[in-house]
Amino acid sequence: MLGAWCLRRALRFCSSAPFPRHKPKAKLSVRDALGAQSTSGERVKVQGWVRSVRSQKEVLFLHVNDGSSLESLQVVADSSFDSRELVFGSSVEVQGQLVKSPSKRQNVELKAEKIEVIGKCDAKDNGFVNIHTPVITSNDCEGAGELFQVESSSKIKEPEENFFNVPAFLTVSGQLHLEVMSGAFTQVFTFGPTFRAENSQSRRHLAEFYMVEAEISFVESLQDLIQVMEELFKATTMMVLSNCPEDVELCHKFIAPGQKDRLEHMLKNNFLIITYTEAVEILKQASQNFTFTPEWGVDLQTEHEKYLVKHCGNIPVFVINYPLELKPFYMRDNEDAPQHTVAAVDLLVPGVGELFGGSLREERYHFLEERLARSGLREVYQWYLDLRRFGSVPHGGFGMGFERYLQCILGVDNIKDVIPFPRFTHSCLL
Amino acid sequence: MLGAWCLRRALRFCSSAPFPRHKPKAKLSVRDALGAQSTSGERVKVQGWVRSVRSQKEVLFLHVNDGSSLESLQVVADSSFDSRELVFGSSVEVQGQLVKSPSKRQNVELKAEKIEVIGKCDAKDNGFVNIHTPVITSNDCEGAGELFQVESSSKIKEPEENFFNVPAFLTVSGQLHLEVMSGAFTQVFTFGPTFRAENSQSRRHLAEFYMVEAEISFVESLQDLIQVMEELFKATTMMVLSNCPEDVELCHKFIAPGQKDRLEHMLKNNFLIITYTEAVEILKQASQNFTFTPEWGVDLQTEHEKYLVKHCGNIPVFVINYPLELKPFYMRDNEDAPQHTVAAVDLLVPGVGELFGGSLREERYHFLEERLARSGLREVYQWYLDLRRFGSVPHGGFGMGFERYLQCILGVDNIKDVIPFPRFTHSCLL
Repeated sequence: MLGAWCLRRALRFCSSAPFPRHKPKAKLSVRDALGAQSTSGERVKVQGWVRSVRSQKEVLFLHVNDGSSLESLQVVADSSFDSRELVFGSSVEVQGQLVKSPSKRQNVELKAEKIEVIGKCDAKDNGFVNIHTPVITSNDCEGAGELFQVESSSKIKEPEENFFNVPAFLTVSGQLHLEVMSGAFTQVFTFGPTFRAENSQSRRHLAEFYMVEAEISFVESLQDLIQVMEELFKATTMMVLSNCPEDVELCHKFIAPGQKDRLEHMLKNNFLIITYTEAVEILKQASQNFTFTPEWGVDLQTEHEKYLVKHCGNIPVFVINYPLELKPFYMRDNEDAPQHTVAAVDLLVPGVGELFGGSLREERYHFLEERLARSGLREVYQWYLDLRRFGSVPHGGFGMGFERYLQCILGVDNIKDVIPFPRFTHSCLL
Repeated sequence: MLGAWCLRRALRFCSSAPFPRHKPKAKLSVRDALGAQSTSGERVKVQGWVRSVRSQKEVLFLHVNDGSSLESLQVVADSSFDSRELVFGSSVEVQGQLVKSPSKRQNVELKAEKIEVIGKCDAKDNGFVNIHTPVITSNDCEGAGELFQVESSSKIKEPEENFFNVPAFLTVSGQLHLEVMSGAFTQVFTFGPTFRAENSQSRRHLAEFYMVEAEISFVESLQDLIQVMEELFKATTMMVLSNCPEDVELCHKFIAPGQKDRLEHMLKNNFLIITYTEAVEILKQASQNFTFTPEWGVDLQTEHEKYLVKHCGNIPVFVINYPLELKPFYMRDNEDAPQHTVAAVDLLVPGVGELFGGSLREERYHFLEERLARSGLREVYQWYLDLRRFGSVPHGGFGMGFERYLQCILGVDNIKDVIPFPRFTHSCLL
């Protein structure tokens, strides 16, 4: 529950909140500082990001993290060092003495002699606007058949009469509605329930789950999207770790021993990027026998996703440029015949598989019109096509499954354990 | 959209964020300061709450409001006055000189010579925990018939087979689920979509709308709830006014002239409290002819609500203690025979009518059991009854319709104009 709040903050902040993309040129990393055996007052310099601030009358406590460790270094300073710029997410360079901490919570702490704010973190700039996309919709975004239909309970047995005049469904994605709004607000996001009527008892599917979805106008390449996705994952995770350390610790200790190291490994490495074509090649060359033979033009299966993540050293990996035939009509044509792919991107993560899915959207009227016509959707999606007639811009977006995200960072095996009231086939308790 | 964020912040903060309940003993009210004709540098004292802070290298700008005006007074101070305690919601006393402002945005500003923080506003204490209550549920919280049923689209024509094994509906309220969680987190809230399949084209009903709902353990009287409700309304409104002044101004200027004064009138007065019985007496003595004759034991109609608000001088009014027979099984019995009422509360506001509804919940096992049995719901709600068997506490909660709230503060007449994708009978566009 705290996770949702962190996620929301992170999304607002992710375009401005920096995180350790490159290992900072610190004299001492946080990891080394925390592990220091001798604390006989040597002078050191530590660089990192502020994870928490506690300001007391005469003393200021900061927790600083540079990505080298999940734990942060406690910095103790005279209150005269306090400044409004010292907030969550701002980057700092702290010089001072490494001393033995009087508290039992850590061995060492850094007694600050100088604190310099390197990069401010002004949270409200470049923010995403939170949109309420509707739950009930007459669209079927994915063209998939696994939908829940909605009808007034007094009319459900007379399907010729619809409450909304047309058949109505529970949303599978807020994307199309976000695209409407991104045409006015540039950067938008939604965070709410989405639904799939999949007859699945798997440990990573729910009939009702939360997605954070973002849509960004004026992006021109997948790289732009990929950067926001990686930042969202890392900034949110850092925020969860600093805001709810006890909750995370509990999971890591009792549910998923070793998860702490695995998470640290994900956070400190740059995520990888491979093309779908490369992915298929990797799978074909694998010594492992798959139940589903990997082949270009066929969807990746869970077993394939798992293999790819392992092959990439258990670092999250973006798979890009999928065959056009596998993906919905709105994804942007790469015009790369003879392969013919679209600018789609999925993020695969250890333990969970697909966590994010996104794409550039087809913003060119005639390309989109032709794809819709080919799918027989031309008429139903006239309103969507019209968005390309009036001030169309290159844009793209993505969605992240919130419960899968929690599984990934907490190491929880079954998705039903990270939501208070799980809904799945044959079960709707309370 | 910004409104939702403000609301969420306000709910987290409302137990700690003070607001002008009593007119502060200021030498000069903000209204008087703003209206000052002569600004020849006289020394004044202003008391109020910080509505925004802008900290620059050498100068600090505060906006201070004391509820006497919707506009805030700009305070300009040397940056040495800056302090981490000067945050949104903290109360301050500022002494200084009233001078002509160099900016065109205001006539006067207060040049601070002394700033004292009276009450800190530490936002994270006493917070409410955000819970995701489910959208799909097998409950029918209100016992009302106006529900949407949900079924896998492939099974909707064979109603003997349910996707969830049981008939499932779109939630009409997260209350029962919140009650589960309030038994662990003490203070919880949810903010999400709720649904009514009412065949209504009225200007204040939607088939899909947002509600903020809160549930609080260890409350013992309606007065406790009423205080949180009034604070939520006022703190949220102050936050909206300070965060999105241009948006509000736009509505007040072009859509609802005069709304600014009406809103100011609501904010600066204490809300009123009358009993249902008193309300019926007031209506009976009214000179106005009603379409529905007011009578004890019968629900209040829209025309009655309007009259009551007007009768109360267009100040929001809490109506409490409704007849037991009118209200659902979970509301707490007042044991006040022969009338026999329950500890329910509705807040009626100008222009909209009912905005909040709430109650103490029946926490006593035998009272609840009897009510359930009488309604034939004993078996279905065994799980709910069980909550009274294990660590039951006096508790209560309320819900506020978010779109109606926006109507109320912005002066927007039709509820369909305050939501991006309105859903109502015969209409589900996009």
